[in-house]
Amino acid sequence: MKKLVIKTTNKGIGTVPGFLSLGKNIGIKKEGKDFAILYSQNVCSVAAVYTKNMVKGAPLHVTKKHLRNGKAQAIVVNSGCSNVATGAKGLENAKKTAVLAAKELGIKTEDVLVASTGVIGKQLPMDKIEKGIKGIKSELADSGDDFAQAILTTDTVKKEVSVDADRFRISGAAKGSGMIHPDMATMLAFMVTDAKVLSKDLERCLKNSVDKSFNMVNVDMDTSTSDMAVVLANGMAGEVDAEEFQKALDLVCVELAKMIAKDGEGATKMIIAKVRGAKSLDDAKRFAKSVVNSTLLKCAVFGRDPNWGRILCALGNSGAKYFDGRELKVKINGLSIFENGKESKTYDGKKLSLAMKENSVITIDLNMGSGNFCAEAYGCDMTYDYVKINAEYLT
Amino acid sequence: MKKLVIKTTNKGIGTVPGFLSLGKNIGIKKEGKDFAILYSQNVCSVAAVYTKNMVKGAPLHVTKKHLRNGKAQAIVVNSGCSNVATGAKGLENAKKTAVLAAKELGIKTEDVLVASTGVIGKQLPMDKIEKGIKGIKSELADSGDDFAQAILTTDTVKKEVSVDADRFRISGAAKGSGMIHPDMATMLAFMVTDAKVLSKDLERCLKNSVDKSFNMVNVDMDTSTSDMAVVLANGMAGEVDAEEFQKALDLVCVELAKMIAKDGEGATKMIIAKVRGAKSLDDAKRFAKSVVNSTLLKCAVFGRDPNWGRILCALGNSGAKYFDGRELKVKINGLSIFENGKESKTYDGKKLSLAMKENSVITIDLNMGSGNFCAEAYGCDMTYDYVKINAEYLT
Repeated sequence: MKKLVIKTTNKGIGTVPGFLSLGKNIGIKKEGKDFAILYSQNVCSVAAVYTKNMVKGAPLHVTKKHLRNGKAQAIVVNSGCSNVATGAKGLENAKKTAVLAAKELGIKTEDVLVASTGVIGKQLPMDKIEKGIKGIKSELADSGDDFAQAILTTDTVKKEVSVDADRFRISGAAKGSGMIHPDMATMLAFMVTDAKVLSKDLERCLKNSVDKSFNMVNVDMDTSTSDMAVVLANGMAGEVDAEEFQKALDLVCVELAKMIAKDGEGATKMIIAKVRGAKSLDDAKRFAKSVVNSTLLKCAVFGRDPNWGRILCALGNSGAKYFDGRELKVKINGLSIFENGKESKTYDGKKLSLAMKENSVITIDLNMGSGNFCAEAYGCDMTYDYVKINAEYLT
Repeated sequence: MKKLVIKTTNKGIGTVPGFLSLGKNIGIKKEGKDFAILYSQNVCSVAAVYTKNMVKGAPLHVTKKHLRNGKAQAIVVNSGCSNVATGAKGLENAKKTAVLAAKELGIKTEDVLVASTGVIGKQLPMDKIEKGIKGIKSELADSGDDFAQAILTTDTVKKEVSVDADRFRISGAAKGSGMIHPDMATMLAFMVTDAKVLSKDLERCLKNSVDKSFNMVNVDMDTSTSDMAVVLANGMAGEVDAEEFQKALDLVCVELAKMIAKDGEGATKMIIAKVRGAKSLDDAKRFAKSVVNSTLLKCAVFGRDPNWGRILCALGNSGAKYFDGRELKVKINGLSIFENGKESKTYDGKKLSLAMKENSVITIDLNMGSGNFCAEAYGCDMTYDYVKINAEYLT
């Protein structure tokens, strides 16, 4: 297998052959792009995963229905209004969006997926949607930049990545700056590839990748009502090596997940918890997630405080089946802080604090010393700005 | 059954016949009381519950061992050092504390319980402990105020309450200002009563009460390494009605739990989530806890923002078995904000925001409309000061 190459330039979803897109303002948000279309020249194999929140937005119901056959050709996304808790009318509007877009693109309604992100509890402004959909076919272009821009809400940066294998490419665009955003908008990820993969295989691959990436990110402990990750494969590059495809998709998802953690609301530092030596994969994941989930630890990182007590406490709270602090070794950005059941002999608070100040990524290495399983989780610090962003959304 | 009376004056643990206590500074903390003794004139029936964190402080191990026979006569508590992650030496120190106190009080070592709260990973200063224990018997007094003061860490107020039944009294003192404190110190609760209750009954009663109170409080989603709730019954008032005793203990625990929520680190508002109409007790508890747990909602309360979307999202994330948003009715401080699956017709953002501004307690009434089960959970808002307190503990 050739080495996979992660691209950070010329990286949009538009760089995969056969996919076109657009992003524009249609007046849902006062300013900035708020409407996006992703279109494939042929019908794709498609897989998707959705939020586990019991409250689900209307678009998710429509997308799920249209994906029953594992095929799709276009996605319509809007930001600024999530179409959640909008009742029968909301469902009708989501359906109508698909119908209108299908008609304009000359494809089947069942091949159009819909996604919405933004304020909860408001109906989609269907007059604007209808007007916005008019003429989209002629507006489609092969740069994915506008698409990646239009799906954002409180995000401060676009999130795009491409991974090149020898014979195929996978590109992705995501939005997300908190598991939940001030207005209940949240994580969306759209991936496209020219690899030929059957829907059922695509589904298995996506589940694997999401477990390692989007399911390992935390900004504020919540899972929103609109989360969705979708991958479309148009098959233009022909059949590919299954293992290579899985690895490439993993890379795309993990990279997007890291971008989401880094752009967490109010964050000044990204936190990566790297667990190894756990007794089971489930334990490894629980440890990693519990560390990036700890509000106390998130505050400590903001304060550049190498507080191993909070790390120990988070591990003890993880719900893992096996944990013995005497076997644990902890490093922060390569500097040892805990081993042999107590503070490291080389522990130097000032040096550690300085390292935390100087690095924008805080890597917490956790060697559990009790097995062979690894996991990584991604998070960010808890800051005054997080509270500000989420408190000052006054009615 | 006579009405139970909650006392807010003359309320210390010292007001229960047969119990004496003290609280003083022995130099663990630079200032303020840091050492406390609770002593019973006779051997008591005792029950305790402990933290579920897999990392447990040394004192918990000693206390558990000494409580095997369900009996005890004294508790030694220190603040300023939690004796957690201190290895074999830490365990030895916890044992020694019990031995020294037992000798000084003239009672059995096995009848002395120990509890510590404060910084993690430091050894107890045994010279100070030893000196502090000297002469305690003559220092014991029947006011519980010094005891209640000496067990505090980052708490801003003492937490004491008494409940009077016709024939007995239960008093309690607690500390806690976050599930975890900056230095890993956390919740402790000590209750005493003159009721005669067998250890096994006491244990059942305490578990019931804790499930309704301390297990329903959240400040920052964490469970610390030192949590402990203990109740001592000296039997001086003779046998009591079991149901009445349970109710009185419930009241004491719930009142202390509310005090902890109210004194949450950096909090400006207490949040009470009152769930009714749930399909099961488990669902009711999950709904209530999920609402007070939501960081987003906690920020919204700080911003006086009646954001029902965040409430709906928290309910959907609760892990409850049954939830249908169309049956849900939500009120904040008596004002309707959500019903019939959407924003209430009478929703008035300005009025709601003003009500949230004017009240120090934000009560969120959640009528799930699907059953007969109720639960309450207690929390507080997320503020700039919370982040400040927990970020600015610089090494």
